Amino acid sequence: MAEVIAVYQLAAEPEKLEKKAEDIALGLTVGSWTNLPLLEQEQLKKHKGRVVEIKEIGETLPSGKKLSEIHIAFPSDNFSNDLPAILTTTFGKLSLDGEIKLLDLKLDPELENDFPGPRFGIKGIREKLGIYDRPLVMSIFKGIIGRNMEYLLGQLREQALGGIDIVKDDEILFDNDLTPFEQRISEGKKVLDQVYEETGHRTLYAVNLTGRTFDLKEKARRAKELGADLLLFNVFTYGLDVLQALREDEEIALPIMAHPAFSGALASSEKFGLSHHLLLGKLLRLAGADLSLFPSPYGSVALEKDKVLALKEELIKESTLSSVFPVPSAGIHPGLVPLLVQDFGNDCVINAGGGVHGHPQGARGGGRAFRQAVDLVLSGKSLADAPPDSELQEAIKLWGWKEEVQR
Amino acid sequence: MAEVIAVYQLAAEPEKLEKKAEDIALGLTVGSWTNLPLLEQEQLKKHKGRVVEIKEIGETLPSGKKLSEIHIAFPSDNFSNDLPAILTTTFGKLSLDGEIKLLDLKLDPELENDFPGPRFGIKGIREKLGIYDRPLVMSIFKGIIGRNMEYLLGQLREQALGGIDIVKDDEILFDNDLTPFEQRISEGKKVLDQVYEETGHRTLYAVNLTGRTFDLKEKARRAKELGADLLLFNVFTYGLDVLQALREDEEIALPIMAHPAFSGALASSEKFGLSHHLLLGKLLRLAGADLSLFPSPYGSVALEKDKVLALKEELIKESTLSSVFPVPSAGIHPGLVPLLVQDFGNDCVINAGGGVHGHPQGARGGGRAFRQAVDLVLSGKSLADAPPDSELQEAIKLWGWKEEVQR
Repeated sequence: MAEVIAVYQLAAEPEKLEKKAEDIALGLTVGSWTNLPLLEQEQLKKHKGRVVEIKEIGETLPSGKKLSEIHIAFPSDNFSNDLPAILTTTFGKLSLDGEIKLLDLKLDPELENDFPGPRFGIKGIREKLGIYDRPLVMSIFKGIIGRNMEYLLGQLREQALGGIDIVKDDEILFDNDLTPFEQRISEGKKVLDQVYEETGHRTLYAVNLTGRTFDLKEKARRAKELGADLLLFNVFTYGLDVLQALREDEEIALPIMAHPAFSGALASSEKFGLSHHLLLGKLLRLAGADLSLFPSPYGSVALEKDKVLALKEELIKESTLSSVFPVPSAGIHPGLVPLLVQDFGNDCVINAGGGVHGHPQGARGGGRAFRQAVDLVLSGKSLADAPPDSELQEAIKLWGWKEEVQR
Repeated sequence: MAEVIAVYQLAAEPEKLEKKAEDIALGLTVGSWTNLPLLEQEQLKKHKGRVVEIKEIGETLPSGKKLSEIHIAFPSDNFSNDLPAILTTTFGKLSLDGEIKLLDLKLDPELENDFPGPRFGIKGIREKLGIYDRPLVMSIFKGIIGRNMEYLLGQLREQALGGIDIVKDDEILFDNDLTPFEQRISEGKKVLDQVYEETGHRTLYAVNLTGRTFDLKEKARRAKELGADLLLFNVFTYGLDVLQALREDEEIALPIMAHPAFSGALASSEKFGLSHHLLLGKLLRLAGADLSLFPSPYGSVALEKDKVLALKEELIKESTLSSVFPVPSAGIHPGLVPLLVQDFGNDCVINAGGGVHGHPQGARGGGRAFRQAVDLVLSGKSLADAPPDSELQEAIKLWGWKEEVQR
């Protein structure tokens, strides 16, 4: 029978680890076992949780406990195959039970195949842009709250003229009178079409899908009608299952960019919550995000490199599900492009806010500096080769740059 | 203008605290300030975040930092008045920014009044049962996964005969072939009507509302048609806004019991995530839960007493929103009733699983033991006065009991 194997990290006294694992396997499934009559054991066997593996993974802590991993298999007969049910089964009550972290959920293929995965993914996004041979460059509107359409469209145009591939809304921009959702889409589209006519460069715009949960589908369908390119979605303040429903709706059929807002509340602790690669990696891919944003190891809000690489792996590893575009973010400037390409290769979206807008020549210069950095790195050159007087050179003067790290 | 004041806890170097607060207030609203032309400052003033208070709240840590609180006011013009928008604004990106915990969100009355609060609350639930003068007693089905309707109904009857006021589904019981959702409601109802006829005691049954998010409303309306008493809901694997939508639907109009499954992932860390009183208290009340389950300070999965009391306060304190029934849970047995009544008074639901089913006389005996304990405590007596040969006496022999703690 199909199973989900949950991998937990907890601190336990080594001699109690086995019992703890058994208690979890039973407590979250059939409740008790050894005291059941044989007939009932027979009847309940296919519902019983199973300890797959237990191991100590760390040094002994001052408390005498050791950091350990427990792997428990949950039979799929116990739950409906949706993320709320899987999370409630594997980490519902258990999330309240002291220091314990959910590191991974391994779904058997027949369970995984019930999930949609990305509708577009890396391949589909690249096809929309017609760009196949380099990382994409993305930027974010800056200081847009309280500003009107003219201001927003001006910023959009500058970013597009800088050669940015995708411009995303600020995740804290909600529906508002100054820059309403529908107007952002339709007028934004005109600006980007105009830039395309002028320059031949196509920029996509990710509009922030916000509001009450049960209004989202209708709103997203309307976005589609108006010609929206992508949806930005603060999935963690809604729910992973809401993302999945947006992905599955055939009338929406737009790429979805999952924003990590609020995910720190779930993933930042070393002792509690979910691992980053599970939350921002595997679960977003299952539910169908096309792009996943997360802090890079290098910027202002940094995530440790091993965590970022594990996260990336979940987004792009071999699977029947399409792969998700990794979007390392936060405090990125052109001087970090060599490191990002080293970590992510071609298949990533390099995402910047201040690193675009803060350029001495504004967003247009910032966009160009990023594109120049990408071209230089892909041609095997160092950023030291940045042409004098180029936008990249200006960016480097301002923010510096970092060479590839020795492995 | 209306504001939400967010209260954060973080560790900061005292001399950098003020700047940190300013950075948050600007970064999560207008982006920048001092470098803006005066005209733009005028235009953006009503959107600017405001530092309300900063204070050190703890000893100096080994790192030289001090545990501190920062209070920031966010103008309501910046967000739509829904929980995803409020959480994204106040703790979206910021949740990723190192050690920081969201302790509280203080909504101005005009913002709070947009939220529904509980439809029934303590008063409405009491009216359904006709019980006004004592804590309610609740119990949970045990070991119900893999069992059929006969088994489930048998357990339901035993619990009802024990004088239990509310029986709730196990939160890990999803829709399944053996005990389908609709059958649980309609057949459960027959059993409880039968017990009412036999004994005059009315027991309510909380059925677990599960499945895909966008199917929940239809399913809940069907539950209502079938005569369901209450809905159990694993709100934290869905989303607070989904709870609110269920609460607001006039065709559902059933009391909703919020289960804390998965909430540990958000609230357990001292350094990250949300406080318990915010997550399981204030936010559930705003969104409209009628009952909130949480670990008591005494059971197997315990929550510290000060946290529990702060949580309780959020559920019942004076407000234009109805009050929410506190449901201390996890490892509760009859011997803990004195402590629970001391902490919660009459207005709580005492919730037990093993403490009901593990009684030597089964769930019927367990239910009676709880009811006897409640009566004894309310009459001002000690559990030492439990009549010999009573079900309570048997429970005490098995699990012991605890007297009121000296304050």
